[in-house]
Amino acid sequence: MSFEQMWRDLAPVGRSSTSGGYFRQPFETAEREAAAWFLEQCRARDLEVSCDEVGNLVGWWRPDPDVTGPGVLTGSHLDSVLDGGAYDGPLGVVSALAAIDLLRERGFTPAKPIGVSVFVEEEGSRFGLACLGSRLLTGATTLDRAKELRDRDGVFLLDAMDAAGVRSSPDVTSVAWPDLREQVDCFVELHVEQGRDLVDRGVPVGVASMIWPHGRYRFDFTGEANHAGTTRMEDRHDPMLTYAMTALAANKQARLSGSRATFGRVDVQPNGTNAVPSRVTAWMDARAESSQALEAMLADITRLAGERAERDGTGLTVNAESVSAVVDFDRDLAERIAAQPGAAAWPIIPTMAGHDAGILSQAGIPTAMLFVRNPTGVSHSPDEFAEMADCLRGVEALADTLEKLAR
Amino acid sequence: MSFEQMWRDLAPVGRSSTSGGYFRQPFETAEREAAAWFLEQCRARDLEVSCDEVGNLVGWWRPDPDVTGPGVLTGSHLDSVLDGGAYDGPLGVVSALAAIDLLRERGFTPAKPIGVSVFVEEEGSRFGLACLGSRLLTGATTLDRAKELRDRDGVFLLDAMDAAGVRSSPDVTSVAWPDLREQVDCFVELHVEQGRDLVDRGVPVGVASMIWPHGRYRFDFTGEANHAGTTRMEDRHDPMLTYAMTALAANKQARLSGSRATFGRVDVQPNGTNAVPSRVTAWMDARAESSQALEAMLADITRLAGERAERDGTGLTVNAESVSAVVDFDRDLAERIAAQPGAAAWPIIPTMAGHDAGILSQAGIPTAMLFVRNPTGVSHSPDEFAEMADCLRGVEALADTLEKLAR
Repeated sequence: MSFEQMWRDLAPVGRSSTSGGYFRQPFETAEREAAAWFLEQCRARDLEVSCDEVGNLVGWWRPDPDVTGPGVLTGSHLDSVLDGGAYDGPLGVVSALAAIDLLRERGFTPAKPIGVSVFVEEEGSRFGLACLGSRLLTGATTLDRAKELRDRDGVFLLDAMDAAGVRSSPDVTSVAWPDLREQVDCFVELHVEQGRDLVDRGVPVGVASMIWPHGRYRFDFTGEANHAGTTRMEDRHDPMLTYAMTALAANKQARLSGSRATFGRVDVQPNGTNAVPSRVTAWMDARAESSQALEAMLADITRLAGERAERDGTGLTVNAESVSAVVDFDRDLAERIAAQPGAAAWPIIPTMAGHDAGILSQAGIPTAMLFVRNPTGVSHSPDEFAEMADCLRGVEALADTLEKLAR
Repeated sequence: MSFEQMWRDLAPVGRSSTSGGYFRQPFETAEREAAAWFLEQCRARDLEVSCDEVGNLVGWWRPDPDVTGPGVLTGSHLDSVLDGGAYDGPLGVVSALAAIDLLRERGFTPAKPIGVSVFVEEEGSRFGLACLGSRLLTGATTLDRAKELRDRDGVFLLDAMDAAGVRSSPDVTSVAWPDLREQVDCFVELHVEQGRDLVDRGVPVGVASMIWPHGRYRFDFTGEANHAGTTRMEDRHDPMLTYAMTALAANKQARLSGSRATFGRVDVQPNGTNAVPSRVTAWMDARAESSQALEAMLADITRLAGERAERDGTGLTVNAESVSAVVDFDRDLAERIAAQPGAAAWPIIPTMAGHDAGILSQAGIPTAMLFVRNPTGVSHSPDEFAEMADCLRGVEALADTLEKLAR
């Protein structure tokens, strides 16, 4: 089945008829349908499927039983952010399947197993912890800690998995892959680019150098609920004002430092039109080129928020919900992958987005990423896009990479 | 049954065990329980109950069948804002029942019927239109238009009423009271004060002069959903920033003009931590001393928001969801009520909050309000409070008023 055909098959799964965006939250219907589609594709290619107890999937290509030992893993994820795009995740999975097809067409026989992986809850859109599947399989987090995670409706992770029947399959393996390095020699994730670096350079494919450090911080602003009509402005302790100034300050600090800071999620209590709020909780996503730069920016924003809270007579606490250190991908591997016989090497560029590749890299697996050009740079949005010609160029680059690594 | 006993009876109904605040949304369990409690109190006093088709209740005291014609109506409401206080609404209902007890103790026989009323959905906390019950009975809005109202879960008004069995009672009357002036000679609503005017004056009771004009406006800020990590700050169209500046501007304009403006309700799409929002919808509650002042403030805020939207590359539309004109209460009636034999008259003061009394006044019914001192001025909050001694002083003032009006 061609790349185009697979892409068309997967396109309607979890797509909103109003926005055109995707809602593929882990262990919910649409995402399970996408996982079932992946298993079908594995069967159609005679890939040997393994499933761990949280739903991470790998379809292994072993040309004959003698081909054992650590394999070359490639893949991505099938879940989406809320109202996300079609490419973030699925492009890496579909390209991996298409790359295997291409290698078989080329008559290539790998000397090592090649696995196509689908990791669960990469976006953290349901349980709040990004790269949950890869964190669990590498031991970066434990199932015991993850058991405490709940979604917005209060559903626990394991209950969500059980409702989806993930653990009832008879041949699931334990999630913390005990022999990770014995199974995985190296990992390559292909991904749509989420910025415009490749557009500016005029090339369809790039290779990752690093992932910026990244943190998610919860800001709790507390005030005094009151009547919106009768309470004099000067008698208020309105946490919405402290929040509003903080959101503007975060934007300004990120611009000044060439970093990123975003308040995209807000929860207001009681959230009534005629009530001064008692509490505003807001989540800041922040990223910078180095951990020092990230910490300095967070400190500036926290200080400015605290000063405003003092003036507003409101309370403020800031909690880091997750912080990921910088990821420096294997430089030698990146250069090997970037090299093209008879042509200029693909550019080696940083990314500001977290990926399962970052988690596997931190677990000591030599890891690389390939990016496919995104004409607008827009992602995590229904407008996320890549040209079909660039996608097919990505499949070729991935097939070339797998040939180099599994020879 | 004494005021104190009634107050204790009603106190647990719909109270949150975590915040101590009240959740008495119309046609939901707690509010229906409060309505059933009221009907019991009417039966215990031999009041003749009438119920219209949306659930507005009146318990009429007719000392004998000859006492007919337009009556003196007093009362308030039993619903609350989300996480509201104990006093806003119930104080007027319980005080009305206690005032009837006091008049009977005094041996007073009214020459006109005296009715105790409970109007539904005064706060607009479920269907978004404040004073819904009194608007319907006065014809300020029609049932045909109200049929379109839905709550946050999409439930239509009539379905909510049917689920609560409001219209299945055999003797409901039509909601638009066709002979309003033949039933109601005048209306008096007792209410906890929602500011500190009486505290500053050092008196327990006041009488209303007017209600400030009041509007609820929906601001829709649209932008471009995008990845919070990879999108350069300068490439964003982030509606959260436009909203944040608007919330601060509204606060500033209200302070400058001695008015009120509050953003207490916000809805963000998609509301994900790692996504620049595609849309922020926020509701502004605004009030001012005159309609001109209200419109001028709205124009200033809208202009500032529009200027910021231009800089942010975001879209903005502003819709008035409801606007209430100024209410000037009957001056003669207020002065009659304020007069106290052998003591200084109660002060006559404005209020910034909407009330059913405002709706009845606009329908041409001579209307008055009594306020009971609130030590902190806090309302629409679990901290809303009035001293018991002041509440009992309020009951006496209301009984005195009813005596004057029903003599």
